[in-house]
Amino acid sequence: MAEKTTKRLAIIASKGTLDMAYPPLILATTAIAMDMEAGIFFTFYGLNIVRKSTMNSLKVPPLANPAMPIPMPNLLGALPGMTAMATMMMKSWMGKAKVASISELIQIAIDGGVKMWVCQMAMEVMGVKKSDIIDGIEDPVGAATFLDYAADSDISLFI
Amino acid sequence: MAEKTTKRLAIIASKGTLDMAYPPLILATTAIAMDMEAGIFFTFYGLNIVRKSTMNSLKVPPLANPAMPIPMPNLLGALPGMTAMATMMMKSWMGKAKVASISELIQIAIDGGVKMWVCQMAMEVMGVKKSDIIDGIEDPVGAATFLDYAADSDISLFI
Amino acid sequence: MAEKTTKRLAIIASKGTLDMAYPPLILATTAIAMDMEAGIFFTFYGLNIVRKSTMNSLKVPPLANPAMPIPMPNLLGALPGMTAMATMMMKSWMGKAKVASISELIQIAIDGGVKMWVCQMAMEVMGVKKSDIIDGIEDPVGAATFLDYAADSDISLFI
Repeated sequence: MAEKTTKRLAIIASKGTLDMAYPPLILATTAIAMDMEAGIFFTFYGLNIVRKSTMNSLKVPPLANPAMPIPMPNLLGALPGMTAMATMMMKSWMGKAKVASISELIQIAIDGGVKMWVCQMAMEVMGVKKSDIIDGIEDPVGAATFLDYAADSDISLFI
Repeated sequence: MAEKTTKRLAIIASKGTLDMAYPPLILATTAIAMDMEAGIFFTFYGLNIVRKSTMNSLKVPPLANPAMPIPMPNLLGALPGMTAMATMMMKSWMGKAKVASISELIQIAIDGGVKMWVCQMAMEVMGVKKSDIIDGIEDPVGAATFLDYAADSDISLFI
Repeated sequence: MAEKTTKRLAIIASKGTLDMAYPPLILATTAIAMDMEAGIFFTFYGLNIVRKSTMNSLKVPPLANPAMPIPMPNLLGALPGMTAMATMMMKSWMGKAKVASISELIQIAIDGGVKMWVCQMAMEVMGVKKSDIIDGIEDPVGAATFLDYAADSDISLFI
């Protein structure tokens, strides 16, 4: 019997902030470029990455994030407008470093054959309908579908 | 020599918020239902998931979480009572979607044979005693016990 | 053909807070002590763990962290000085439990042969230069280098 030679990357994307939307998409598209297989299971807040109404307005939290390159006192971070500023700063850095935008990365992932699943349970919990999800994503599935895929993966990551 | 056929899921649960208490328990109980093996190593804030005094009062942070389904300005999120409100909202969504509670999921995991470990070092750091931990959990172990288990796993996740 | 027998742990360290700097270093040094191979890819805020100007001043966020052993109302957590207090508390707990400091753990990791990579893209995005990174770390690499290493790992974790 021939040995499996194609490597596989299986990712759970559970965060809905702009900074944590990049890692699953960058890793999956890099994997595809290396001729690996890759799949992403969007669940919990991660649904927002592939949700029409939110995918272009993901935000970076300025609060409770002492690791921000320009540290902000928490009281300042609580002022209205600071989330917008932190988000704008990150978009500007990403642009300067010539990193693709979230929507560009999603398109590269879909075109490259990354499996893109949305979690049925998270959709019910958060009241998200299939029509709220962007095109190119498979029908909602349960965690079992992801585990079945990940069980034959070489790299599995919860992001 | 027969090949290992049972798949194995190894999880580190390091977060103590209500929203991040669900993923390890849902994934592990789903894996068991699929006839996989599953183990969870509770460490750092994740100890609170299996701690008698906290397991029924885990909370959702409303602050620094721009991905909350109903976004809240940070200044509003800093007001007393907002953590309680965000927590109540999540419990209500989970209930509507017929998701089991944390304590129900823990019981399903224990009954289903999920390995449940607590991290000895984290217990010392946080001043948690063995008597503070719920029944059905194994004696405290070090990270080596988890790594040994995970080294033969097919899926490993840090949550 | 001889079977690979040495087990391998591959970690992405993406967080720059003190509490999330410990897990990658503790797990990797434990793995080395168990005669496993281990590698850490520092990216996003995780760069701060191996950055000269920040590695000794990583902080714990007191806000939006309802799982802190001594819970703090969010409004209190937003007061100036609370990040410092939460950080001091964690360092004190770690000291009492005889856990090595971050810089000690990094040295143990380097001496023990843990592969330590920094992410080239994150460095560009955050404006970090190679001279800003501590000694003993390899030249900046892309995500592909990590994926290539992780594809032959037995445990992969995104922290």
